[in-house]
Amino acid sequence: MKHLFSEPAPLDPAQIPHGFSFASTACGLKASKGPDLALITSGEPATTAAVFTTNRVKAAPVLVSQEHLRTSGTEIRAVIANSGNANCATGAAGLAAARATAAAVARELGCKAEQVLVCSTGVIGVPLEAKKIVGAVPGLVKSQAGSPEAHAGVARAIMTTDTRAKWAAASCRIGKKEVRVLGCAKGAGMIHPQMATMLAFVVTDAALSPMQAQRALERAAATTFNTVSVDGDTSTNDSLILLANGTAGNPIIRSAGVHLRQFVKALESVCRELALAIVADGEGATRVAEIEVRGSPSEALAAHVARTVASSALVKTALAGADPNWGRILAAAGRAFWPKRVSLDYSKVEIRVAGILVCRQGQAHPFDEAAAHKKMLERYVPIVLDFKSGSGRATVWTCDFTADYVRINASYRT
Amino acid sequence: MKHLFSEPAPLDPAQIPHGFSFASTACGLKASKGPDLALITSGEPATTAAVFTTNRVKAAPVLVSQEHLRTSGTEIRAVIANSGNANCATGAAGLAAARATAAAVARELGCKAEQVLVCSTGVIGVPLEAKKIVGAVPGLVKSQAGSPEAHAGVARAIMTTDTRAKWAAASCRIGKKEVRVLGCAKGAGMIHPQMATMLAFVVTDAALSPMQAQRALERAAATTFNTVSVDGDTSTNDSLILLANGTAGNPIIRSAGVHLRQFVKALESVCRELALAIVADGEGATRVAEIEVRGSPSEALAAHVARTVASSALVKTALAGADPNWGRILAAAGRAFWPKRVSLDYSKVEIRVAGILVCRQGQAHPFDEAAAHKKMLERYVPIVLDFKSGSGRATVWTCDFTADYVRINASYRT
Repeated sequence: MKHLFSEPAPLDPAQIPHGFSFASTACGLKASKGPDLALITSGEPATTAAVFTTNRVKAAPVLVSQEHLRTSGTEIRAVIANSGNANCATGAAGLAAARATAAAVARELGCKAEQVLVCSTGVIGVPLEAKKIVGAVPGLVKSQAGSPEAHAGVARAIMTTDTRAKWAAASCRIGKKEVRVLGCAKGAGMIHPQMATMLAFVVTDAALSPMQAQRALERAAATTFNTVSVDGDTSTNDSLILLANGTAGNPIIRSAGVHLRQFVKALESVCRELALAIVADGEGATRVAEIEVRGSPSEALAAHVARTVASSALVKTALAGADPNWGRILAAAGRAFWPKRVSLDYSKVEIRVAGILVCRQGQAHPFDEAAAHKKMLERYVPIVLDFKSGSGRATVWTCDFTADYVRINASYRT
Repeated sequence: MKHLFSEPAPLDPAQIPHGFSFASTACGLKASKGPDLALITSGEPATTAAVFTTNRVKAAPVLVSQEHLRTSGTEIRAVIANSGNANCATGAAGLAAARATAAAVARELGCKAEQVLVCSTGVIGVPLEAKKIVGAVPGLVKSQAGSPEAHAGVARAIMTTDTRAKWAAASCRIGKKEVRVLGCAKGAGMIHPQMATMLAFVVTDAALSPMQAQRALERAAATTFNTVSVDGDTSTNDSLILLANGTAGNPIIRSAGVHLRQFVKALESVCRELALAIVADGEGATRVAEIEVRGSPSEALAAHVARTVASSALVKTALAGADPNWGRILAAAGRAFWPKRVSLDYSKVEIRVAGILVCRQGQAHPFDEAAAHKKMLERYVPIVLDFKSGSGRATVWTCDFTADYVRINASYRT
């Protein structure tokens, strides 16, 4: 896990999926004047799958991208993303700004506006100055040379409260062809007030049917992005987008089977790396906990318990203090079921913190507190709850909840 | 609300329900050697109603009290409560300790052990030294003189991380008789690790049937204790107990009607005062926010949205910074429904913070940021979300989430 706490190593050019270009620039949306505009284009129209926020308040770019996917999901040419403004709660003007952004990219690429997806991240409720973006697009498109580090520029331009850029790559063989998967993401730091958060873009040169692309993405998201929690607040802009342009020349994946499984494995590896990097870079975070629930009568129940423990303020503050405070873990697990009337036998539960048995049969098990504290000072703390009541298991990752998180999020905007 | 931030004024002896005695002492459970044992007795057997934690992990005293209520719910003579140890996750020894405590009180009062309820609050997972309690009981029972301030001693002896004692009283007429209601509670500070939290004891000299007593208590709890949130963690020991000994001589309340309504009103007034005092004394809290949701298609939906906003870490940190950060309020409301497929029209929502309109028709409404910040520096901040889509409304109270909360809960136990 240690590598998650610094910027990823540069990629080898051979790891970059074929047929994609990357570009980034600063168009003046951020007060810092830092990079705030990123573009990914595919030379060939790409089959595109996406997972968007479940928040009922959806930002304008989410609505426009959903619209474009419905009409042009098999022929997407580009994704453009800005940071510094979420373009959320901005009404009709916000929708117009998102459309203008897509149209500007389409003009330069010579495609339809519907072939361009738009993403935004930043402050909620502030009108987006689309003309800054529109004015920067021609230069942005021209600048997308084939530099092997260009994807890192994209990862940097979508950062807001992130302290480091996040990318990851994987590959696999499908039939006789090597296919490559590359992802960039920005995370769940929430330093700046009114932040709308997670964006993740994954590109691959694999060939997939639209249905299998969506299936692969949803499957990968379920075990990666949907198993991490920073502070329990779902943003209005979350978007995970997969572009598959088929340039690897593999037999098109049209159904479930070994080819899909191989691809999902590579996709999951990229998504997991990005999701864990987001947790490790969670606002104010100093360490990551892996909460694993085992021995549950069902997987769904295990996931529910793991998620509840992972989002408990008391568990997360104990983690910040490297305190092997298993009473809080047990109490959080105990409230997980309410109001569902599911019974789970807490008198059998076994809890291990950082590999040390602290609770057996639902009761205190003697352990060396000082040794456990020392182990919890590591950047990665595994916590296991075993209910000994079945084979259901689930794992969720979370970060600690520090005074820095509060200090930053409580500071009055200036 | 200002009065919530200091200890309540002393009660007039006429406000104390007839027929109850109060006593408190220090039996050595707390390292501080402070008061840690409290006793409330009723001269007459009391009809008793109770609401216990919904946590699936229930402390031994909760299990034993539930058992005693089943057999002796109409003839309870006493409630004994200790602080400093939650007697939770303590297995068979914990159950034996709770039973021994009840038996010791019964011996002194000359009643059955089943007529005594037991409550504990404090550290989870540490064996309770019942002999300390048992040894102190005879002196405790003897000391319960009729001092009018004795109830304040009870309120103090159940404190753990609370910074001040909490009590409240009300009265009403039932038929031609005045009946009195008095409550003591301890709250949801969570300074000490592994804390199990809320206890509230309400005594009344009103006469009620067991069914109406339970009905009145559940109704009052729904609009008071169940509408406050400090950090979203449900404890393993929460207990709200109502003892009604009937010594006021009112016509026994046996059914719904005007008498029950009058009694519920008085009971609610006591419970609301205690619940708000708990929020105001929430660990690290500097201010209280009242989250009111109006204009919802249903009351249940309004309550769900209000609760989600009230437990959002981002809303609560903004409150700590007195930041009129409505984007976070809107985003929290937006995630309230997931995964339920209920539609609510966010394009109509109006948000007021501290009386200032900040969002209209789901979009930013221009307001004086500095003036709003100044108003939010008050100890009480009303926040209203009006969905303009019906008559459902609900209110939830919460406190701010400060760096002090984290600092205290993250400090490694020494």
